[in-house]
Amino acid sequence: MPWSAATVQGWKPCSTLASPGIMSSPSEPARRCLVNETRLRVRYVETDQMGVVYHTNFLIWFEVGRVEFLRQLGFTYRDMEREDGCYIAVVDARCRYKAPARYDDQILVRTFFKNLRASLIHFGYEILREPEMTLLAEGETTHIVTDAGMQRRELPAKYQAAFARALGG
Amino acid sequence: MPWSAATVQGWKPCSTLASPGIMSSPSEPARRCLVNETRLRVRYVETDQMGVVYHTNFLIWFEVGRVEFLRQLGFTYRDMEREDGCYIAVVDARCRYKAPARYDDQILVRTFFKNLRASLIHFGYEILREPEMTLLAEGETTHIVTDAGMQRRELPAKYQAAFARALGG
Amino acid sequence: MPWSAATVQGWKPCSTLASPGIMSSPSEPARRCLVNETRLRVRYVETDQMGVVYHTNFLIWFEVGRVEFLRQLGFTYRDMEREDGCYIAVVDARCRYKAPARYDDQILVRTFFKNLRASLIHFGYEILREPEMTLLAEGETTHIVTDAGMQRRELPAKYQAAFARALGG
Amino acid sequence: MPWSAATVQGWKPCSTLASPGIMSSPSEPARRCLVNETRLRVRYVETDQMGVVYHTNFLIWFEVGRVEFLRQLGFTYRDMEREDGCYIAVVDARCRYKAPARYDDQILVRTFFKNLRASLIHFGYEILREPEMTLLAEGETTHIVTDAGMQRRELPAKYQAAFARALGG
Repeated sequence: MPWSAATVQGWKPCSTLASPGIMSSPSEPARRCLVNETRLRVRYVETDQMGVVYHTNFLIWFEVGRVEFLRQLGFTYRDMEREDGCYIAVVDARCRYKAPARYDDQILVRTFFKNLRASLIHFGYEILREPEMTLLAEGETTHIVTDAGMQRRELPAKYQAAFARALGG
Repeated sequence: MPWSAATVQGWKPCSTLASPGIMSSPSEPARRCLVNETRLRVRYVETDQMGVVYHTNFLIWFEVGRVEFLRQLGFTYRDMEREDGCYIAVVDARCRYKAPARYDDQILVRTFFKNLRASLIHFGYEILREPEMTLLAEGETTHIVTDAGMQRRELPAKYQAAFARALGG
Repeated sequence: MPWSAATVQGWKPCSTLASPGIMSSPSEPARRCLVNETRLRVRYVETDQMGVVYHTNFLIWFEVGRVEFLRQLGFTYRDMEREDGCYIAVVDARCRYKAPARYDDQILVRTFFKNLRASLIHFGYEILREPEMTLLAEGETTHIVTDAGMQRRELPAKYQAAFARALGG
Repeated sequence: MPWSAATVQGWKPCSTLASPGIMSSPSEPARRCLVNETRLRVRYVETDQMGVVYHTNFLIWFEVGRVEFLRQLGFTYRDMEREDGCYIAVVDARCRYKAPARYDDQILVRTFFKNLRASLIHFGYEILREPEMTLLAEGETTHIVTDAGMQRRELPAKYQAAFARALGG
């Protein structure tokens, strides 16, 4: 029986993305995906003298979204570190900026799971301004799983299972 | 007569990069390029509870290097904004992380100019730890030139000339 | 007729503070005050390698609380700047740290208005961790009202009236 | 024989402070003190939409100065943590703002040691803009010495001796 977004509490389906095609390719049909939606408000400290949000803050918002994505999957990154000595280190981060975010804006962070392959975890993101839903930026991060000493290790089975569910597997 | 790095005060030639090939392609020989070198020390606030530098700080260091690159070209970004109402906004930023930076590390930021095409400015970066010269990260940023209202505008001729010199043109 | 906290939507009375005495003195009875309560979650970027939140983030949270305090008063700081050219610049900031905040903690920021005298605005703050309501820090900030050029100016009457209401005047 | 700043490599005497009286009181003559001077340049990320440096960055600069003060005393805070499991946690921080710092300003951070009493360490700071030496801010921080678990511990004797020297003892 096919996976249905409606059956998964609080998740949005991939088709709600501003660029839903990001999850498909010519050789494979559009994949199912789960999108976490997290909201935050732009802080004064995040602005710069151009009168807009300084660009690295979008990557910090990606992290805020990623943490809430994991919480929605059923665990916390905090416990992953504390109880399993399992760290998700960033090895690649990219952001494309479409329109400026401004002080006090209500920001929507959409985080989705792109894949888990060869011990690399890929997340995708969209940053929008509410309520008009203007797309401000989109990006991706790639991560490896490490131990406390920053050495690569395998993702424990319980997390692998949770990620697999996020991909509708 | 070929361009000589030795004739340009303080600049390093492209061949000093950890990945000098980044400036060449099969269809064109390795290009001449100028590399600015700027040093900074990791601040406590830049670390996170993983015991390493939080990843977005590398992009802030890219900006520190970019500003010093412009200063070495003969002008300041500060005056570019103040006197010419000319802003260099980030439209794309990417960073690949190779090894962690740690508190109190002496960091070398290498900034080089990739090109100026169709009103887009491309910079490249390498982040190394001194004195052992370990490559910690490399990245690129793409920028557009805007006015104070974030509307695209042309780069004033004097800056175009300075950038052209940086490409050995 | 006496002011009643219960009649003011969403505000907490001063007596809910961990240190309610902060609003009284031997020469004057405990004053009435309004307390705004704002919640946020500790971000990874806010931690340092000591495994706790880096201390300057508490002052950023003070600002988050201050902005929500103003919103609860009936206006936004954003419009105060945009529409009235009225800026609230910090001239003094202090924080006393009682216990560490940690990654992913649920933080409660309590902001209260201490007074408005001789064109100086004083705010007080308490930072607590929920749900156990541990007091993590307390502090104060003092502000002057300026124009866009950072020159001192008078607070427009409509804001003075709003602040007076916050003091139960 | 009186202590002479000239005999201590690189240190400045207390009398060079903008407010040298900060080290004296009616009941005791102006004390000798050592002042570390550290320079940094304002980063773009440190500005906000008011066009000036966001106020919490001054406290980050205090820390930059504090670390260089310790280095000048003959040890590094990095090794203090790593080799001796000795942490200097902030328990109180205060800053008074006199004039705004702006993007690309050349900042001078003056750090001086106020005292070490009952296991509390007090530092004082002045932030100036070069070359005109405008006083932008001044402040103090108070610290306790802790172990890795944030429990109070005694400062190892070798560091106590180094601090005593800094007070001319």
